[in-house]
Amino acid sequence: MSSTPIDQARLWDDLMALAAITDPERPYTRRSFSPRFLEGREWLRRRFEEAGLKVRMDAGANLIGRMDGAEQDARVIMLGSHSDTVPSGGRFDGPAGIIAALEVVRAMQAARYRPRHAIEVVDFLAEEPSEYGVSCVGSRAMAGALDDKLLAFTDPSGEKLADAIRRVGGDPNKLADARRADIAGFFELHIEQGAVLQNRKIDLGLVTAIVGITRLEIVFDGSADHAGTTPMDSRRDAALAAAQLTLFVSERARDFARRGNGHFVATTGILDIRPNAANVVPGQARMVLDIRAENPALIGEFAAALDAESKSIAARVNVDRTRYAVLSSTSPTICDAGLRELLARGASGLGYSTMPLASGAGHDTAFVARIAPAAMLFVPCRDGKSHAPEEWAEPDALAAGAATLFEAVRLLDGQHS
Amino acid sequence: MSSTPIDQARLWDDLMALAAITDPERPYTRRSFSPRFLEGREWLRRRFEEAGLKVRMDAGANLIGRMDGAEQDARVIMLGSHSDTVPSGGRFDGPAGIIAALEVVRAMQAARYRPRHAIEVVDFLAEEPSEYGVSCVGSRAMAGALDDKLLAFTDPSGEKLADAIRRVGGDPNKLADARRADIAGFFELHIEQGAVLQNRKIDLGLVTAIVGITRLEIVFDGSADHAGTTPMDSRRDAALAAAQLTLFVSERARDFARRGNGHFVATTGILDIRPNAANVVPGQARMVLDIRAENPALIGEFAAALDAESKSIAARVNVDRTRYAVLSSTSPTICDAGLRELLARGASGLGYSTMPLASGAGHDTAFVARIAPAAMLFVPCRDGKSHAPEEWAEPDALAAGAATLFEAVRLLDGQHS
Repeated sequence: MSSTPIDQARLWDDLMALAAITDPERPYTRRSFSPRFLEGREWLRRRFEEAGLKVRMDAGANLIGRMDGAEQDARVIMLGSHSDTVPSGGRFDGPAGIIAALEVVRAMQAARYRPRHAIEVVDFLAEEPSEYGVSCVGSRAMAGALDDKLLAFTDPSGEKLADAIRRVGGDPNKLADARRADIAGFFELHIEQGAVLQNRKIDLGLVTAIVGITRLEIVFDGSADHAGTTPMDSRRDAALAAAQLTLFVSERARDFARRGNGHFVATTGILDIRPNAANVVPGQARMVLDIRAENPALIGEFAAALDAESKSIAARVNVDRTRYAVLSSTSPTICDAGLRELLARGASGLGYSTMPLASGAGHDTAFVARIAPAAMLFVPCRDGKSHAPEEWAEPDALAAGAATLFEAVRLLDGQHS
Repeated sequence: MSSTPIDQARLWDDLMALAAITDPERPYTRRSFSPRFLEGREWLRRRFEEAGLKVRMDAGANLIGRMDGAEQDARVIMLGSHSDTVPSGGRFDGPAGIIAALEVVRAMQAARYRPRHAIEVVDFLAEEPSEYGVSCVGSRAMAGALDDKLLAFTDPSGEKLADAIRRVGGDPNKLADARRADIAGFFELHIEQGAVLQNRKIDLGLVTAIVGITRLEIVFDGSADHAGTTPMDSRRDAALAAAQLTLFVSERARDFARRGNGHFVATTGILDIRPNAANVVPGQARMVLDIRAENPALIGEFAAALDAESKSIAARVNVDRTRYAVLSSTSPTICDAGLRELLARGASGLGYSTMPLASGAGHDTAFVARIAPAAMLFVPCRDGKSHAPEEWAEPDALAAGAATLFEAVRLLDGQHS
């Protein structure tokens, strides 16, 4: 492994310092728009300034630290992720990508490397699902995808998302200003949130694509009859239909995953039985299914199979399939091949092993990719645990990621010379 | 059909008058121990007194109307059911058995029939699951089965069951006085709460037994992993195990029911998935199973099959079966063959068709049967619906049941002459 100007201890200490800014009764929690979140951002702003960055907030309330480049006309090389967390989340999902980006800039200064492009380090607003029912708020704004419908969403207290953005320093009336057309390339370092790298003992993952996600809601209605007096052959048991569909989802998803046509997973994550009483045959079952694939055709094919199978199960079990609805659907994002190649060259030059890997989770990169070449670098995390306090990445794995990012930025900066 | 002294209109009008005493915003509701329940009992007390009955409340707060018999030493013929309801219940489950009993006494007076035995009409306290977590409170007391452990149960406000019994007119310190050893026979008329009589076009059901009920709780623990990043083959999906066990319960219960070894049903009524979020593989699934049979050996055999199968499913799906517990278990109650025969002769003499039928639901009769010969008569109800406002029995079906009860009481009264 080559020596790099990345300071592993400084990177780690900063990450732990930001993690210490948490709701004390439920580590690690910095919910977007909360006072704790703003406290975290105050700390970030100071660290950006101490690194000599010019700090501003854009209209989408993205916190941006900028180091100017030698050439004023050159487009920006952007690095970043998000500092907000889920409730009782971890210390790495989000912050690792910001602190690694900051460390890249500090390493350039330490190495007296003067980039030709401006380098910007971004903390995107509210990447995690927020209290307003929207995720990736800041990266949506940067991509021009934060429309009036989303801005009108409210949190449980009734505050509109637009007002919340204003409250944390953005300007919902000037979102057009947040939209960017000057980005040469965007890199996001992130923990894998899966265990593939750990299990295969690979140093870093080169993200091929961020999966498309389709959420389906299926409801079966039967008859909520007395569990004692209704003979087995007279039942219209909605939970029985849901059980059959749950098995189908799992078995068919395994088949799709085995085809080798990219990452494919499907999950029955929500199952609500009514009335959910010991002495009543379930009269209704509501399921929410989550289907994710790199290849959008597979999602369509899987959804069509579910549509047909849920109808057929309903007929067999003598219940009605009263709802089959697409709750949401996003397309897969293909990471930029050129930037992936720079990451691969960077890692290889430093002696790190890499593998191509799809991201099964959504990320700010998916929105930035709409307006600029964008790519992601995955760092292994212990047992794939994420969105939980035990989330963990090793200090040297993070440093390896930051060093690879440093090399990729230098390569990109040089490419445009 | 022979003419009987039963007054169908009076029976129906009384039933509707009692039903009209309901929480107005959620018909039909008279929850035990509530002011509305006491209002219903005040009305019943008046109707008992108007029929010339001597009314008293026993230590278990059972409301009892008594017509003395010609022979002071003869044991009591008891008839009755309960006036309390589930929330948003029906007009027949419980009250039909009390009003029919009252009508039998009135019909005796109209027919100038002077019984040798005293006849008692009983409104048992709190047959439905009460806010104190106990059902059949009054019939338990009468059978000497209301122990200190149950008396210490509390409602959500913290009131003890013992104090609630005192509040509605009983005396928890003198429960021994409520225990009866002087009952010659007990009859309970009740709606079927199933659709067997309706589907087979049979006038009345002669209850063979009240099923034994065993409740099992089974918990599977897997791993609550990210639904996007966890490959299908690395999952420990607790809901998948629950789905497999749900199918097993249904299929195996059908097999048991088809054996023809008496009524058998099994139900997965409660299924709780955690965290129950669209983007998380279910890490835990909790099931509550309800198993009912006339033949207690079948319950044991079924539970053993579930124990083995749930272990085997857990191993196959790579989750842990962390709980297998019997929450409650009651034995079947066999109805008295002599009293059943009297009901059969009564119905037959009146030209009504009958069939033997198990009760899949619990009833006060199950407790009275511990201390006296006891039997039940089922009246058809529309589509088997019960515990719901649409619960319905036809006026002439109820009158047919009351007339059969009248004949059976006369036969029993004569038998002991």
